[in-house]
Amino acid sequence: MTQNINPVKIAVDAMGGDYAPQQVIKGAVEAARDFDIEVVLVGPRETVQAELNQYDLNGIKLSIHPAEEVIGMDEDPVRAIRRKQDSSIVVGMNLIKKQQASAFVSGGSTGAVAAAALLTLGRKKGISRPALGITFDSLGGPVLLMDVGANSDCKPQNLLQFAQMGNVYMQKIYALPTPRIGLLSTGEEETKGNKLTLDSHHLLAKSNLNFIGNVEGQDLPKGGADVVVTDGFTGNVVIKLSEGLAEVLSMVFKQAGNGGASLGQATGRILNHTPGALLLGVKGNVVITHGKSDADTIKSSIHVAERMVEERVMEAIGT
Amino acid sequence: MTQNINPVKIAVDAMGGDYAPQQVIKGAVEAARDFDIEVVLVGPRETVQAELNQYDLNGIKLSIHPAEEVIGMDEDPVRAIRRKQDSSIVVGMNLIKKQQASAFVSGGSTGAVAAAALLTLGRKKGISRPALGITFDSLGGPVLLMDVGANSDCKPQNLLQFAQMGNVYMQKIYALPTPRIGLLSTGEEETKGNKLTLDSHHLLAKSNLNFIGNVEGQDLPKGGADVVVTDGFTGNVVIKLSEGLAEVLSMVFKQAGNGGASLGQATGRILNHTPGALLLGVKGNVVITHGKSDADTIKSSIHVAERMVEERVMEAIGT
Repeated sequence: MTQNINPVKIAVDAMGGDYAPQQVIKGAVEAARDFDIEVVLVGPRETVQAELNQYDLNGIKLSIHPAEEVIGMDEDPVRAIRRKQDSSIVVGMNLIKKQQASAFVSGGSTGAVAAAALLTLGRKKGISRPALGITFDSLGGPVLLMDVGANSDCKPQNLLQFAQMGNVYMQKIYALPTPRIGLLSTGEEETKGNKLTLDSHHLLAKSNLNFIGNVEGQDLPKGGADVVVTDGFTGNVVIKLSEGLAEVLSMVFKQAGNGGASLGQATGRILNHTPGALLLGVKGNVVITHGKSDADTIKSSIHVAERMVEERVMEAIGT
Repeated sequence: MTQNINPVKIAVDAMGGDYAPQQVIKGAVEAARDFDIEVVLVGPRETVQAELNQYDLNGIKLSIHPAEEVIGMDEDPVRAIRRKQDSSIVVGMNLIKKQQASAFVSGGSTGAVAAAALLTLGRKKGISRPALGITFDSLGGPVLLMDVGANSDCKPQNLLQFAQMGNVYMQKIYALPTPRIGLLSTGEEETKGNKLTLDSHHLLAKSNLNFIGNVEGQDLPKGGADVVVTDGFTGNVVIKLSEGLAEVLSMVFKQAGNGGASLGQATGRILNHTPGALLLGVKGNVVITHGKSDADTIKSSIHVAERMVEERVMEAIGT
């Protein structure tokens, strides 16, 4: 049984992501200071300490937990975590398991973090496939989209479980009593979609969730549902397309000069999503942050983890 | 054997789409005049004639071909086309079959138009599943994405055929000698993706196409491939998400006043795609235009059809 640790103590993978360790450590220091939480940096002691020396850590609850190995972005996930037991990812996951940390945030290889979580923490009862969720701002408010990449091929039962986990998340984090659950498909009618969505529609319709039916691509930015479930292939294409569009538009805005900058901010809110993806369905709070995370996004992912701990999301999903 | 008809003679479904017949007829009149082609309006004679009376048709090659029935957007496609043999969709398709028109443009129900094309015209040899393609502007130039909705569940062989048809289209319409073919997936590596893309990757790699490997969501607006193949479910989500984002952003731009309008145009070019989707793989030139098409988009879809006729795309795809 995992229990809530008080005060919040977040383990952060100091070596995860393209801008690690510099940006990760900067974000972790700022998070520890601004959120008044305890942060444990997991990574090679000397490397992390050298980086930390440039900060004034007075009054900040920050420590180092050594892990001398690093898992690269292109290593085979399962093989890497089996062979590198002293890697920041495996060591960080073990801190949650041993209840020495209440959550783990990593910008490392998504596959490796997810595999380590499965092997180290295990799945929640009744959840056959843990999934990755991200939250983005639609015109109608925040929407949780899941799965965005943990499960490329899904069964209807998986989508139902994604919906159940997403339901708990939105209840806890956004205090919505009965989140509206939508199924991403190619038409509003229940007869529209592929084999997976047709079968999933039936399962969701007879569940006790507040299932509002199919939603389509255009409903993602417009809003209408609080949770949108899809297979990890489609979800991954959706978030990467949004990221690509945001990047291309910001180039257009920059060329447009001053007027463009403020519009860029306005549209960024619509196109962008939280950099931290929640891995729901494992026995621990795990946030996988974007590989290109800078200090600000690391800090924001630590905040997402903090909220999950405080609202006891993981406990509410099941045993 | 279907042969090219000279001069170009495009049949247009006068009753297809949300703004039919007014906007369709307006667009058709403008196309006939500006492109100097022959246009046949297919629909109830009296309704179409009443609409036409408000235009000066001097020197324009425009005629009416009567079809008294209309297929609604929510009718079951196959049943509707079997029962409504005098509908604008079925009659228009027969005009191609009888070589009384060189192409058919419709803003009607995608399912009904595709089913009528299959049943009336038949499939090209070697094409097991005709597919819908749309072209959009990426930073790297025009990209043909297909399938965007005709086939929700696909096999690897289907994706290979989509690639072959898209290859011909981009060769003919954009004069590219060896179009770059990409497979939409969730990572660059051939080991990334779902079962369909993993198997399709192998097929494409050993084909004689210029296969450049997997492309990801962010590569759609950024560019890099000339043809991107995907299953019709994912493709449909992609184009509807783009449409939704374009709509939401244009609202943001309007609120921003003058500066916003020009930026709206710039971003519209990136987010938007041609309103006309090409139905490739049937024995005839068929363009299915967006249900919300206004006169301008009808005109632009007629232009797409004209180009397909002139460049003999359909003939080049096979017999």
